[in-house]
Amino acid sequence: MNLHDKLNALGSQRTDYRYDQPDAALLERFPNPYAEATINPHGVTGSLNITCPEFTSLCPVTGQPDFATLVIDMIPGAWCVESKSLKLYLGSFRMHGEFHEACVCRICNDLVTLLQPKWIRVEGRFTPRGGIPLWPTAEWRQPGC
Amino acid sequence: MNLHDKLNALGSQRTDYRYDQPDAALLERFPNPYAEATINPHGVTGSLNITCPEFTSLCPVTGQPDFATLVIDMIPGAWCVESKSLKLYLGSFRMHGEFHEACVCRICNDLVTLLQPKWIRVEGRFTPRGGIPLWPTAEWRQPGC
Amino acid sequence: MNLHDKLNALGSQRTDYRYDQPDAALLERFPNPYAEATINPHGVTGSLNITCPEFTSLCPVTGQPDFATLVIDMIPGAWCVESKSLKLYLGSFRMHGEFHEACVCRICNDLVTLLQPKWIRVEGRFTPRGGIPLWPTAEWRQPGC
Amino acid sequence: MNLHDKLNALGSQRTDYRYDQPDAALLERFPNPYAEATINPHGVTGSLNITCPEFTSLCPVTGQPDFATLVIDMIPGAWCVESKSLKLYLGSFRMHGEFHEACVCRICNDLVTLLQPKWIRVEGRFTPRGGIPLWPTAEWRQPGC
Amino acid sequence: MNLHDKLNALGSQRTDYRYDQPDAALLERFPNPYAEATINPHGVTGSLNITCPEFTSLCPVTGQPDFATLVIDMIPGAWCVESKSLKLYLGSFRMHGEFHEACVCRICNDLVTLLQPKWIRVEGRFTPRGGIPLWPTAEWRQPGC
Amino acid sequence: MNLHDKLNALGSQRTDYRYDQPDAALLERFPNPYAEATINPHGVTGSLNITCPEFTSLCPVTGQPDFATLVIDMIPGAWCVESKSLKLYLGSFRMHGEFHEACVCRICNDLVTLLQPKWIRVEGRFTPRGGIPLWPTAEWRQPGC
Amino acid sequence: MNLHDKLNALGSQRTDYRYDQPDAALLERFPNPYAEATINPHGVTGSLNITCPEFTSLCPVTGQPDFATLVIDMIPGAWCVESKSLKLYLGSFRMHGEFHEACVCRICNDLVTLLQPKWIRVEGRFTPRGGIPLWPTAEWRQPGC
Amino acid sequence: MNLHDKLNALGSQRTDYRYDQPDAALLERFPNPYAEATINPHGVTGSLNITCPEFTSLCPVTGQPDFATLVIDMIPGAWCVESKSLKLYLGSFRMHGEFHEACVCRICNDLVTLLQPKWIRVEGRFTPRGGIPLWPTAEWRQPGC
Amino acid sequence: MNLHDKLNALGSQRTDYRYDQPDAALLERFPNPYAEATINPHGVTGSLNITCPEFTSLCPVTGQPDFATLVIDMIPGAWCVESKSLKLYLGSFRMHGEFHEACVCRICNDLVTLLQPKWIRVEGRFTPRGGIPLWPTAEWRQPGC
Amino acid sequence: MNLHDKLNALGSQRTDYRYDQPDAALLERFPNPYAEATINPHGVTGSLNITCPEFTSLCPVTGQPDFATLVIDMIPGAWCVESKSLKLYLGSFRMHGEFHEACVCRICNDLVTLLQPKWIRVEGRFTPRGGIPLWPTAEWRQPGC
Ligand SMILES: [Ca+2]
Ligand SMILES: [Ca+2]
Ligand SMILES: [Ca+2]
Ligand SMILES: [Ca+2]
Ligand SMILES: [Ca+2]
Ligand SMILES: [Ca+2]
Ligand SMILES: [Ca+2]
Ligand SMILES: [Ca+2]
Ligand SMILES: [Ca+2]
Ligand SMILES: [Ca+2]
Ligand SMILES: [Ca+2]
Ligand SMILES: [Ca+2]
Ligand SMILES: [Ca+2]
Ligand SMILES: [Ca+2]
Ligand SMILES: [Ca+2]
Ligand SMILES: [Ca+2]
Repeated sequence: MNLHDKLNALGSQRTDYRYDQPDAALLERFPNPYAEATINPHGVTGSLNITCPEFTSLCPVTGQPDFATLVIDMIPGAWCVESKSLKLYLGSFRMHGEFHEACVCRICNDLVTLLQPKWIRVEGRFTPRGGIPLWPTAEWRQPGC
Repeated sequence: MNLHDKLNALGSQRTDYRYDQPDAALLERFPNPYAEATINPHGVTGSLNITCPEFTSLCPVTGQPDFATLVIDMIPGAWCVESKSLKLYLGSFRMHGEFHEACVCRICNDLVTLLQPKWIRVEGRFTPRGGIPLWPTAEWRQPGC
Repeated sequence: MNLHDKLNALGSQRTDYRYDQPDAALLERFPNPYAEATINPHGVTGSLNITCPEFTSLCPVTGQPDFATLVIDMIPGAWCVESKSLKLYLGSFRMHGEFHEACVCRICNDLVTLLQPKWIRVEGRFTPRGGIPLWPTAEWRQPGC
Repeated sequence: MNLHDKLNALGSQRTDYRYDQPDAALLERFPNPYAEATINPHGVTGSLNITCPEFTSLCPVTGQPDFATLVIDMIPGAWCVESKSLKLYLGSFRMHGEFHEACVCRICNDLVTLLQPKWIRVEGRFTPRGGIPLWPTAEWRQPGC
Repeated sequence: MNLHDKLNALGSQRTDYRYDQPDAALLERFPNPYAEATINPHGVTGSLNITCPEFTSLCPVTGQPDFATLVIDMIPGAWCVESKSLKLYLGSFRMHGEFHEACVCRICNDLVTLLQPKWIRVEGRFTPRGGIPLWPTAEWRQPGC
Repeated sequence: MNLHDKLNALGSQRTDYRYDQPDAALLERFPNPYAEATINPHGVTGSLNITCPEFTSLCPVTGQPDFATLVIDMIPGAWCVESKSLKLYLGSFRMHGEFHEACVCRICNDLVTLLQPKWIRVEGRFTPRGGIPLWPTAEWRQPGC
Repeated sequence: MNLHDKLNALGSQRTDYRYDQPDAALLERFPNPYAEATINPHGVTGSLNITCPEFTSLCPVTGQPDFATLVIDMIPGAWCVESKSLKLYLGSFRMHGEFHEACVCRICNDLVTLLQPKWIRVEGRFTPRGGIPLWPTAEWRQPGC
Repeated sequence: MNLHDKLNALGSQRTDYRYDQPDAALLERFPNPYAEATINPHGVTGSLNITCPEFTSLCPVTGQPDFATLVIDMIPGAWCVESKSLKLYLGSFRMHGEFHEACVCRICNDLVTLLQPKWIRVEGRFTPRGGIPLWPTAEWRQPGC
Repeated sequence: MNLHDKLNALGSQRTDYRYDQPDAALLERFPNPYAEATINPHGVTGSLNITCPEFTSLCPVTGQPDFATLVIDMIPGAWCVESKSLKLYLGSFRMHGEFHEACVCRICNDLVTLLQPKWIRVEGRFTPRGGIPLWPTAEWRQPGC
Repeated sequence: MNLHDKLNALGSQRTDYRYDQPDAALLERFPNPYAEATINPHGVTGSLNITCPEFTSLCPVTGQPDFATLVIDMIPGAWCVESKSLKLYLGSFRMHGEFHEACVCRICNDLVTLLQPKWIRVEGRFTPRGGIPLWPTAEWRQPGC
């Protein structure tokens, strides 16, 4: 089986951007190449650093826009996240209202559900509101890792 | 229950700024999203970094203004601090006289009372007075954490 | 006559800080030493650069606090501004509501009235509001200079 | 007349954020304090520098989000732009599709219409698309200035 | 007419990447918004800065890959270049052998043909070959501008 | 009891600067707010960082002036040092002759006597003499801490 | 005549530091080597840059210490200032009270009297008082130069 | 005619490196693409910046190795230098003894002879010898350019 | 006994600089203030960092000058080194030929002999010779410390 | 004639370092290659930048060592200075006492005598004495250049 047989977003005929609410179904995964013996005969260990500087959502109470750079660090297990689908998923927060902490918590959980990584950490570096930058972090480790 | 059902400051019809003395009653909290199973089904661990570069108070003896950047690091428990209420709370020191150390100690205690975090540290990076910058730090850890 | 015979703020028995509204009467001046033949027998030319990083005022509409660094450049004429009185004068904006542009315009005008300098420029580097920093500048040159 | 008698957005009971298309009617102005003899008795000259790091719009063809920092420099005439209304106006591009060049051109024109400044320049520092950052600039000078 | 009525590459059902030789036919243009009275009623002046850090071609003699960052500065006339088509056009050099100077010269000429700008400059910041970085520049100004 | 009932230097009618010899009696302390149950109901832990860039004394043999930045780190016990009294105390070295090492040792001892801290470290970053900067450090820990 | 026949401070049996008031008689000069045909047979043009980071004086009103870095630039005429005597002269401000502007003006005048340079500029980069750094400059040019 | 029909060094079956003495015959040129109407139909203007950080020669007297970064700026005329041949040419100084100034002068002259550029400048940034870095520059402009 | 009763170099009527060979007899010590109960009643712990950027000696074979910055770290015992005598001692290497390693070893030994410190480390950061910087270090610890 | 026929210092069997007094006879020159038609057939223009960070001399009055970085910029005429001879010449100041200004003036004059350059500037960046760095500059231009 080819690693990308089931990907929809990447190279699709027409990408439909969804902006109304976070949609974990937009996320797509492909088999972690580090987990394939044909690709990784020596069993080298893999890890990932992903920086997403263009995250924006709305304040759940006032409706005003929030902006953040998300930094995702991960030791993948059986799956890797496809990056265009990650962009579409993060774009789906655009018109959605949720507190900084809840956004970061939700993103970390959706990635844990999708990928079952060995370890993952998501940090949201939000720009200041009222002169105060508030940066939440979420971290998860697979039991036994 | 919605996370922000009980918030007053954020998005209120009219914010009443209080500047005469520190008023912990201005602080508002909302349920820590990391503690909600619906938002955090995988039980990821959360932490927070908050930078407040616009803190100002008065010297308790001379009445002259003091300025500081407050840096708050926290592992929340059941509650998170709402950031606009934090701004209003910090703003309530504007016309209040108190030593640097006491301000930092008070802020840390008020946040412990409000939030019962697992761990918190508050550092006050005050600008120089008499050519001398004095930076106090306060730290608290919930017993058993 | 001693240069500082008429100064009130500097070294006063007790400084009374006024925070309710801008009070140009707080500003004090002393004879520009460069203009005194006993101190400047050779007639050397003088200029001044003053940086005030702790300016704060209120928004005239919402009442929320604003913060700025003011930078003042000047070629003095007959008078110099006394720096503690300048601090007290700038401190008198603490509980006063006025737009950024008007604060800078007012400060420049009050210094022109007090000092009749040959040239002066006042820049207000305000911290962001709504994510947007707005920096006004005011400049004045004595006719014929 | 008070400088802010006619402002709606700033300190309003409830801000209504509009995200569907650029709406110049959101922009508000107030009389340039530098143009008021009571505030500027000496006739000092004013100028403005405004940085807006949180601009976002959509691509008019693909619908994908674009991000930019807008930098506005201005010598105002009779009017100044109110900064919260500027934030709301820029926020109204959030779900609107338009090319980078057209956004910058439109913003410059809307500000010229509103403010009739002596001089204005708007630069859009857009983040890369396809690995390529494209930065348009628009500039206008009142005839005779 | 809509500014993007005739664009093919942007948002097309399927992008066909061409890598065998530079193909100016891949370039697409759209009417310069600054030249449309409906978008630019005040006739503001426009300019553009485009940075393309991912250019790659082959050495015409040895076949080894070359890499460059192209920096394009322009005062557009009647047309603007569409940025995805620019990416595809630059991508068409991928398997093509041509000297650094000729690549930059060709790109500048192809953009002049397409856009008839008032002024354009293209600089190729090539990475070292044999330890030697060689950076050619091409510049063109419309007669009378 | 108010924390600052017994302070003399701060806000006094007239500060008498003493410059002839180090005078530990100039140092004043106030009850450590972290040690007061009313201010610190949760018993948060406090620490202090103080930077004094304007220390000057005389060489005990040649009489020439020495300059240093003193850096003081401390975990206070029952008392905190009042910062204006610290400035006055450090100022009292101005006309006093003592070697770098002895100055730092004396300052550390005077602060231990005054404050009985849990831990303290004083570093003297002296400017070069004869082209040679000499930086002594003194450190003290309360037995059992 | 040897250039240093008449110097007293440099290499004296015992340097007597004077700290009570500025004493221009402490300044010593030696014949500008650039003006001596035996040393400068080709008539090369000389200039000087001198940085004095350890200047300290007292406030004339409060008696509190002030600190500055003085930067002196000069095109000498017939004389050069001897640098140890300059240090002693600057040290004589140690217990003297005078405003920043007057110190800089006085130093410039004393050097003009001593040296009759072709051009001289003295800048005083004082450390902040009340959070405000104030930097005066004095400049003089010999008529006809 | 193809631009690279006559090139020998680039892509030759076997490069013969010559290290014994500077050999201008190693330099090869190709027709300046900016001068070819087929490549430059619009007559855009070209310029070049070439950095060569790996130049090494020998001291003509002691035989010890010298190292330099050569920086070449040029407005080409009818010809461009082929960069691999430039590398071979510069490599031919490896076992050759010549002073820094003469190397730079020779390289500039050899390039003028080969290329007849409109303008050229060659700077040699040599590493220190005896603790002293010596950097010669050579510059040439075609008469009438 | 005064700490500096027996010092010769510091403040002597006339310093005789010796430049012909390293002379440990130039080094002078004074009782470590940290070891004096009157100065250090609390028994605070002392340490020292000394930087000497102006060390120069000769190559023992070629006679050419060498230059270094010496960095000395120490926990003193009963004695401290007087810094002007250290300068004179280091100056006595000026016309002396010795390898880098031997200089550093000698200096460390001479200081151990003079001071019997608890711990000492001497590092010589020599400038390059033949393009190669060579940095020797010497370290000594008193038995039982 | 070979450019280095008459050089003595460079590559001599044994370099005799002279340290007792400045000896311009140590300086050697070789014909400026830019002035030789065989080396510079096109008449390219040459210039030179030389940095000498290891200059040391003695104070003429106290005998203590001084250190400087000398920076020499030059447009040579008929001659160039040979760099090892320059090192030896600068080394000859090692045991010589002379003021900073006189050293720089002398070096500039000796180079003018030796080289008859079209233009030359010598700057001495001396390390601080008494905490004060003093930097003299000397400049000369050949009449008619
Ligand atoms: Ca899917
Ligand atoms: Ca939603
Ligand atoms: Ca109060
Ligand atoms: Ca008054
Ligand atoms: Ca008011
Ligand atoms: Ca729209
Ligand atoms: Ca091809
Ligand atoms: Ca007391
Ligand atoms: Ca004393
Ligand atoms: Ca005298
Ligand atoms: Ca006095
Ligand atoms: Ca050939
Ligand atoms: Ca040879
Ligand atoms: Ca002795
Ligand atoms: Ca010897
Ligand atoms: Ca001598």
